[in-house]
Amino acid sequence: MAEPALIFAAKEYRDRVARLQAGMAARGVAALLLTMPADIFYATGFLTRFWESPARPWFVVVPQIRDPVAVIPSIGAELMGRTWLDDIRIWDAPDPRDDGISLLAEALAEIVPGQGRIGLPMGAETHLRMPLADFESLRARLAPRQFVDATSCLQRVREVKSEAEIAKIREICAIAGRAFDRVPQFASEGRPLAEVFGDFQVAALAEGADWLSYLAGGAGCDGYGDVISPAGAEPLQRGDVLMLDTGAVKDGYFCDFDRNFAIGPASDTARRAHAVLWQATEETLAALRPGLRACDVHALLCAGLERHGATLISGRLGHGLGLSLTEWPSFTPRDETPLRAGMVLTLEPGCVTRAGRIMVHEENIVLRTDGAELLSPRAPAELPEIGR
Amino acid sequence: MAEPALIFAAKEYRDRVARLQAGMAARGVAALLLTMPADIFYATGFLTRFWESPARPWFVVVPQIRDPVAVIPSIGAELMGRTWLDDIRIWDAPDPRDDGISLLAEALAEIVPGQGRIGLPMGAETHLRMPLADFESLRARLAPRQFVDATSCLQRVREVKSEAEIAKIREICAIAGRAFDRVPQFASEGRPLAEVFGDFQVAALAEGADWLSYLAGGAGCDGYGDVISPAGAEPLQRGDVLMLDTGAVKDGYFCDFDRNFAIGPASDTARRAHAVLWQATEETLAALRPGLRACDVHALLCAGLERHGATLISGRLGHGLGLSLTEWPSFTPRDETPLRAGMVLTLEPGCVTRAGRIMVHEENIVLRTDGAELLSPRAPAELPEIGR
Repeated sequence: MAEPALIFAAKEYRDRVARLQAGMAARGVAALLLTMPADIFYATGFLTRFWESPARPWFVVVPQIRDPVAVIPSIGAELMGRTWLDDIRIWDAPDPRDDGISLLAEALAEIVPGQGRIGLPMGAETHLRMPLADFESLRARLAPRQFVDATSCLQRVREVKSEAEIAKIREICAIAGRAFDRVPQFASEGRPLAEVFGDFQVAALAEGADWLSYLAGGAGCDGYGDVISPAGAEPLQRGDVLMLDTGAVKDGYFCDFDRNFAIGPASDTARRAHAVLWQATEETLAALRPGLRACDVHALLCAGLERHGATLISGRLGHGLGLSLTEWPSFTPRDETPLRAGMVLTLEPGCVTRAGRIMVHEENIVLRTDGAELLSPRAPAELPEIGR
Repeated sequence: MAEPALIFAAKEYRDRVARLQAGMAARGVAALLLTMPADIFYATGFLTRFWESPARPWFVVVPQIRDPVAVIPSIGAELMGRTWLDDIRIWDAPDPRDDGISLLAEALAEIVPGQGRIGLPMGAETHLRMPLADFESLRARLAPRQFVDATSCLQRVREVKSEAEIAKIREICAIAGRAFDRVPQFASEGRPLAEVFGDFQVAALAEGADWLSYLAGGAGCDGYGDVISPAGAEPLQRGDVLMLDTGAVKDGYFCDFDRNFAIGPASDTARRAHAVLWQATEETLAALRPGLRACDVHALLCAGLERHGATLISGRLGHGLGLSLTEWPSFTPRDETPLRAGMVLTLEPGCVTRAGRIMVHEENIVLRTDGAELLSPRAPAELPEIGR
């Protein structure tokens, strides 16, 4: 049996690493240390669901002037060997005495001069995927080398997607769109929400998703209480609004959008809320341009919602998307990240429909120099009714 | 629509927290800070797939002498409000200026005296799920309070499962077992491995899994190159050994076991390897007792494999299981964790079949005072042949 190929040709990864290296040079960083799945996938093409196991740390070092070095558990040697990387160093993990730290320290000491700086994502929307005690030990061993925050180094590069990446996200958006089209076939009055979740996952797989990393939703009269719950066993009732929100995956790339459905005839409240969310999205889609800041998009969405009489919800109203279910920037009042052409983003306005109930609406787009291009098939302007 | 209930009655969580608190008292820790999904689910019952989004940190503080405090993004307020916790403090995340750090510092300062110790899992098989820069800032604000490693505090409690937890793991093992029984219906010569992966996920959902957090596998003559790869588009060939390894989830609890199948008649090499793996598992199952150490189980499996003529592979040969796909201990030569009754474990021997090819075999068990009780339906002693 032939080995699965990389998702993209090696040139895609070489270009990415060259862009990372340019940012590193500008910031005086001799090497980047990557520990998070999306960062490692981005630089190397190493794609596995094995990240689900928290047992082992994985390291990729991106030097400023040569190809990346993988320092990884031996269980990943074969798969990493199929990427474009040549320098792969392995140890038998987990090892309670030394879980790759000596090997990693050696690699970093080779690459980074004694007074040099090692970049590590330490800022918003990142974390260090290795035991903290091991990091403290690594830092002590490598002194006087310094670890410095390299969040922006990664984010300014990753946030602008290549056409190859955009094509992947478009593909998974289309797959999820076809799965949403099937919802009226299995969501109906009396059917437990947990079964609807199961059917939706089956539908997305049947339509071509590799897997579903995320599915949440809710159902209730005039809206739902929250948007992150797993499904309960309660049956759908006539008059409910059903919302499903999915992060399906194809070749490692995510979509992230939701759809609302009325079970039976929609209440006036739900119908109006859906129309307002749709309209605020429509107006913001028309206004999106490179150069706006993330907080400006938040303001645009809020202004649209208020103009149409909606009661605002707190929290962010959209975000970046791609190699993770959510990426920066965040459409909040405080995120000043400038939007750039090539960013893939979600618009996700929500509103309060009545005490303890909300509705949300979400689309995925890529920002072009002249505005937004939809990647998700646009939701219908009117709230669809199932079994009216 | 009624709200989904907690997975277990509040007493289950109260008992867990009381056990954590006893360990904290013994170690002089005034509060535990939890940031990882499984730890937070364990203490509170808060179950969501929203962890897939790396954007926001979530915190649960377990004081030594009162109920836990949740310090979480507002998007989770409703869902956390359905758990047994009363003290839930929220902020609008993500917030680039202060992503919950002031709120968390305040909660910890209330609970932990000025010279007190805050326990944090920092050791093997853990990581800190929050931005590192925010942790440094938190540590500085809370000084002279000290952060100390509380890995064993968590692990000694979580590793012994309650009967309620064991029942959940038994249920998801049975679901996955029925999905494996369906494999001969969709895996056949000429079928692309990616489609087999899709069909397996559909089968597991149809059998009652809430979702599949993990599926990996491989196929090849006399074995496969590795065990963590996603599927490629290559068709199965007559003579291949197909392996599927799944971490399916029900009510937040995982199974983790694999099955092997021959496509057409099995080669002598594959048949013999399967028989050896099965036999080494059988012998180890019979020998497992509380009081053995994790490294003793590794030695037992290796001795069995060698006695039957197998070529050993490196790496661990099994591990803990439950709220994550993999938990400690690890069956390696260096893990000296003592086995205790109530531990849920996988036995996962593997062997080299020829250059570049391996086969692996996995079962899930709960350790009782008198030995191992299988949770996964035992694999057949002979390698099953599909479409012989």
